[in-house]
Amino acid sequence: MRIGIVGFGGVGRAFLNLIYNKKNKLESEGIYFQVNYIIGRTGGVYNKHGIDLHKFINFLFDEKDITKYCDGGKAEDINFELMLNNKDIDLMVEMTPTNKETGEPGMTHITRCLENNINVVTSNKGPILLAYHKLYNLAKANKVQLGIGCTTGGALPSINGGFIDLAGADIISIEGVLNGTTNFILKEMEDTGCNYDDALKEAQRLGIAETNPALDVEGFDTASKLLILTNVLMNTEKTMDDIFIEGITKLTPHDINRAKSMNKKYKLVGKTQILDNKIEMEVKLQLLDPSNPLYGVEGKNKAVRYISDTLGELTIMGGASGVTPAAASILRDIININRGYKFVK
Amino acid sequence: MRIGIVGFGGVGRAFLNLIYNKKNKLESEGIYFQVNYIIGRTGGVYNKHGIDLHKFINFLFDEKDITKYCDGGKAEDINFELMLNNKDIDLMVEMTPTNKETGEPGMTHITRCLENNINVVTSNKGPILLAYHKLYNLAKANKVQLGIGCTTGGALPSINGGFIDLAGADIISIEGVLNGTTNFILKEMEDTGCNYDDALKEAQRLGIAETNPALDVEGFDTASKLLILTNVLMNTEKTMDDIFIEGITKLTPHDINRAKSMNKKYKLVGKTQILDNKIEMEVKLQLLDPSNPLYGVEGKNKAVRYISDTLGELTIMGGASGVTPAAASILRDIININRGYKFVK
Repeated sequence: MRIGIVGFGGVGRAFLNLIYNKKNKLESEGIYFQVNYIIGRTGGVYNKHGIDLHKFINFLFDEKDITKYCDGGKAEDINFELMLNNKDIDLMVEMTPTNKETGEPGMTHITRCLENNINVVTSNKGPILLAYHKLYNLAKANKVQLGIGCTTGGALPSINGGFIDLAGADIISIEGVLNGTTNFILKEMEDTGCNYDDALKEAQRLGIAETNPALDVEGFDTASKLLILTNVLMNTEKTMDDIFIEGITKLTPHDINRAKSMNKKYKLVGKTQILDNKIEMEVKLQLLDPSNPLYGVEGKNKAVRYISDTLGELTIMGGASGVTPAAASILRDIININRGYKFVK
Repeated sequence: MRIGIVGFGGVGRAFLNLIYNKKNKLESEGIYFQVNYIIGRTGGVYNKHGIDLHKFINFLFDEKDITKYCDGGKAEDINFELMLNNKDIDLMVEMTPTNKETGEPGMTHITRCLENNINVVTSNKGPILLAYHKLYNLAKANKVQLGIGCTTGGALPSINGGFIDLAGADIISIEGVLNGTTNFILKEMEDTGCNYDDALKEAQRLGIAETNPALDVEGFDTASKLLILTNVLMNTEKTMDDIFIEGITKLTPHDINRAKSMNKKYKLVGKTQILDNKIEMEVKLQLLDPSNPLYGVEGKNKAVRYISDTLGELTIMGGASGVTPAAASILRDIININRGYKFVK
């Protein structure tokens, strides 16, 4: 399988290590990776017979700038356009950073690859958030596959759960605890009795929350994952504007104590449900009791819970954080596509 | 897709209702079922152009004996051999009762269909327990698929979880709470403070436990599901003799109270793990604390928890009980095979 990697940060590096380390396992099921392109922001590496991964991974030990790696052509000439023109890949792994307003540059990369009959697996939430159905139909028209498992919780197989494990059932509701940063802050408030601001500071000190934590703590990250799950699994074309979104910033130690006294816990839950034949979506703090399968989702854990007509309830919990699990979720989609699975029917 | 149903009990009836009620949904993804055979113990129904499901389902409202349904040929002449000879099905749904000693009659049905290039989806644990690898290789040699998702928890997508959701990862351990009857008895003892015998009697009164409850309460049902998961997902050929099996019959109210005082719960857990490069398997009562994702698995719920190298932990919980969810898990395998998935590579 000839692949091109577009966007090469931490997950990209982890992905290369993964397919290098798992070579024997992958070959045992008939996957022979040949990485023809690795394209970063300022240039790339290309070898039409496949980049020597052993050599390239060793190079990365001492050097971050991939344009300094020499494998024939000049690094600055190796870009997405060249890759498209050369027509020598079967699958693009798109891992450029997410832009939730325009989806770019991922939107262009994915669109043009699908148009050119190249399969795509991506970790990039932006294009999927903004144009899932357009991209799905493009993939369908061009008879290629589009793997997006990494975009809704990384290692957590949330899309697979709804799409494969509930195949044939109708999904009535989707609920998810999908954001690790807010899990951490809530747990910190529970464990130490501190207020929201102090818990946030601790999360920032540990590198769990970003300097500008709004995306996480105000519920937008949860909402964007819920939006993708809903559009993919309920065949709708909702946007962020359709979601009522409330974060965790107003929670007080008093609220937490009251919850504790009732043996309950607060979780930031994204929820889609069908009420009176209408799809309703919201992200807000929910007070859960121990019988709720989402009650125990803490720390880096994430979970999604589906209720369906014929297969009942299904809760999927787990999904390690970090670059290797994210890379492994990209690899999972590639393997399942290679095993013949039609995510795009 | 031309199918033959062999073994026609409650799940078979539910399966027919399901594909009849979901006709539009199934056709929207290109599945046009044509049920050519329904074969019970004493005879069957056959129509080479497909049995009229509307008519047949109506017939079943008043009548249990399918041999009284007239659709051309004599019911007693319609049997498995005829179906094989006619060569007019693409997939057999095998739903005869489980026999864990010989696997028969399912073993013969599955073997002969695979040999004759007919795909198989089955709910029958017996043959899978006794000869999974033999049947897998037979399917592979004959380029057909073998769907066994229903055999390890019915609606709970335990096989999918390990096979599809952890594709590319190595599974290090498998833990499962896989038996509803023991869940009920443990919960009854916790809730009422009664002893084991009284909890069992209550379960029998409600029809949850069988008159001879040994298979469930002594851990054999859990062990058989664990065995299938282990052989399928860890590529081994273990037998029941390789499992240390202990049931729940010796648990006392005193044990339960002690667990409660530590804020813990007993669950009957089947566990496979790799210790010193050796696969160790056991079924026994485990004392779980609330941080364990299996802690909350109660009543009819089931769950399986995998730990993997690159995708971390994955817990899958749910799986409604009853004939419709079991039938829906058969349908799920058929849909996923139709979407191109190669369970047999």
